[in-house]
Amino acid sequence: MPAPMSVHEEIRLLCEDAKRASRLLAEASSELKDAALRSVADSLDAAREEILAANAGDVAAARERGMPPAMLDRLTLTPARLAGIAAGVREIAALPDPVGRLLSREVRPNGLRIDKVSVPIGVIGVIYESRPNVTVDTAALCLKAGNATVLRGGSEAIRTNAALARAFAAGLERAGLPAACARLVPFTDREAVPALCGQTGLVDLIIPRGGHGLVKAVVESARVPVIKHYHGICHVYVDAAADPGMAVRIVLNAKCSRPGVCNAMETLLLDSALVADPSERSVKVLARLAAELAAAQVELRADARALPLFPGARPATPEDFDTEHLALILNVALVDGVDGALAHIARHGSGHSDAIVTDDASAAEKFLNGVDGACVYWNASTRFTDGGEFGFGAEIGISTDKLHARGPMGLAELTTYKYRIFGSGHTRG
Amino acid sequence: MPAPMSVHEEIRLLCEDAKRASRLLAEASSELKDAALRSVADSLDAAREEILAANAGDVAAARERGMPPAMLDRLTLTPARLAGIAAGVREIAALPDPVGRLLSREVRPNGLRIDKVSVPIGVIGVIYESRPNVTVDTAALCLKAGNATVLRGGSEAIRTNAALARAFAAGLERAGLPAACARLVPFTDREAVPALCGQTGLVDLIIPRGGHGLVKAVVESARVPVIKHYHGICHVYVDAAADPGMAVRIVLNAKCSRPGVCNAMETLLLDSALVADPSERSVKVLARLAAELAAAQVELRADARALPLFPGARPATPEDFDTEHLALILNVALVDGVDGALAHIARHGSGHSDAIVTDDASAAEKFLNGVDGACVYWNASTRFTDGGEFGFGAEIGISTDKLHARGPMGLAELTTYKYRIFGSGHTRG
Repeated sequence: MPAPMSVHEEIRLLCEDAKRASRLLAEASSELKDAALRSVADSLDAAREEILAANAGDVAAARERGMPPAMLDRLTLTPARLAGIAAGVREIAALPDPVGRLLSREVRPNGLRIDKVSVPIGVIGVIYESRPNVTVDTAALCLKAGNATVLRGGSEAIRTNAALARAFAAGLERAGLPAACARLVPFTDREAVPALCGQTGLVDLIIPRGGHGLVKAVVESARVPVIKHYHGICHVYVDAAADPGMAVRIVLNAKCSRPGVCNAMETLLLDSALVADPSERSVKVLARLAAELAAAQVELRADARALPLFPGARPATPEDFDTEHLALILNVALVDGVDGALAHIARHGSGHSDAIVTDDASAAEKFLNGVDGACVYWNASTRFTDGGEFGFGAEIGISTDKLHARGPMGLAELTTYKYRIFGSGHTRG
Repeated sequence: MPAPMSVHEEIRLLCEDAKRASRLLAEASSELKDAALRSVADSLDAAREEILAANAGDVAAARERGMPPAMLDRLTLTPARLAGIAAGVREIAALPDPVGRLLSREVRPNGLRIDKVSVPIGVIGVIYESRPNVTVDTAALCLKAGNATVLRGGSEAIRTNAALARAFAAGLERAGLPAACARLVPFTDREAVPALCGQTGLVDLIIPRGGHGLVKAVVESARVPVIKHYHGICHVYVDAAADPGMAVRIVLNAKCSRPGVCNAMETLLLDSALVADPSERSVKVLARLAAELAAAQVELRADARALPLFPGARPATPEDFDTEHLALILNVALVDGVDGALAHIARHGSGHSDAIVTDDASAAEKFLNGVDGACVYWNASTRFTDGGEFGFGAEIGISTDKLHARGPMGLAELTTYKYRIFGSGHTRG
């Protein structure tokens, strides 16, 4: 009897299969990739009962372990949600192929022609938490961009993810592509994360999507490139020169339209000039913000300077300003103009999305230049940071890193490039 | 008396200074950056005696330790070389600013305008070996792109690098920029490398330029993104349909024009059809290659199939095909057509530069598509992989990684982007 394989060996074999599959995918035609995606969608429809039964198992186990209702909801698949996942795959199939775009062409004085062309990245490892839709969305997007995927989902969704991955594999194989184009790590051992992150030469990129513990585990063990999809500590700065009505609308939208997502505002920065200024405009902004946030049942955590402005607010702790609440909780601080806002954001921001509300173009310009982040808004809500809103067709997530992809990461960001160089016997002198 | 600082603490302070400087640089005008670079060039000229004396100290110490002549030569500065370094800085000052380019502009159906604009990366750590010119070239390029630099050169060049860094700092300060824009790690402790690579939140990118040991040390300790400038195991594949004269010219150029650089060919792949084919053309290619490589005193290391073709060749070891010889040594292997070449390159290549010589367009297309590398050539020498040859104006090196920058890395690749988004009170429904 052979000795059982270690987690590291199993992951290595998975990644070797993925690497081989990625070479096939890199040469696959758009037609083949799109047919495979449609076939995957059909398989998801056909396997509906099996997937829902597996999901019911995960949900029952999670409920037994006392998972909170919001997380239980994220974990749960319904027939409608599953149909939505399959429809999403068909939408991805209908998008233009991001591979093979001519990014630039230059003919050098010596006649050498240098084409820069988009190509797949290769093998992408994705490490994520409980939402099972990520399994299919991610694998489908990566496949469209010619990449093979190794997926490592949360243990609480393992039955669902396994059923989804089986359907995905069946769809691929029916279309003539190997199942190794998108493979789920079939076990939940914790060592799978460092093992996957250490596959130099096999895995080209790791995308961690999740909270602090997950991202930290990935960063500490990674020997391959990582693009983090980490948290959004998003700020809205209301300048003294803001239009009162606009300021209130944007603040309410950024906090309340969907508090549980990464592009929701966590901290409201108010220009101290608003407080010093007894004009009707300033008084109106502050009073309306206080009233409408109270009406929306937003819990306020204010720094010492902002506390007197908001009856019912409690004092913020230092940690609050570094916390992604993902709930109807809002930090509030008073800052001295744009410079004060920039200093606060430099210290506490996560480089995700930050907004200024002002009618003063020079203040806006200073803010747009000064914030070191993926998406900086003038007179708009942070909630627009989203591949769909950006017109990307689909997104794999929001990169909070600076290199390769920053902000919404769509199909184009799932490719890299190579130079194809055409000579006629050129040698270098 | 305070306790002495640890290496880690010293590096942390350096990086904090660099971070502050990077915020200034990100907002600096093109004029200020260019004036600072010209001032640095003047300082290098003014400090000539001091720099050359420091270099003489490094060279003497290295000679005493028995450094081989080729490496001694790399380490040595002459008045002409130093003047060339200063001239290089003035050339960088004269290039267009890579920051602030509008990369795309989109107005969404809801009226939101989304501008994608190039911005500096932030703080770049560069870890390199003996060439002291890297100190100045790198810091100047990074500065031009609005980045602060922390430089960690080889211990054998520490006196030279320190003198160059002093002159650089003097030039910056005279122009009104802080010396922290480009700072050399002033000591040679080995722990400086992991300390620098672990500065999450302060260092945005590490570029290691060097051999296996250096790159490995960086990759193992890095908690921040890395773009490796690693070795080039470059291949030239001579197809059965190659023009004999062109094949010989390209092979000789790729191997012999400058064997010590990363874009030089290390392995010659010959189509086995050349051997099977008794036509004049095939015989001619093989005979001329053997004769001219012998005349150029290239040492050949051939696999079992190629050995009989090259009198005087010795059998290649398995390691040879994975070795960057950087010398007049050439691996030779017989492969079965383009597929055989692709399989060999997939196994042994480093994704740097590979070439096919053929008159057969479909063979060339297959090769250009099939090689997973930064630069793939048809009928041209691999030696063209170079920022200058690509028209980049200047280069910091050749990335052998796939993400963010692949192949020659110029000023544009030393920037990232952000989205500046313009609304008129936009909220998301």
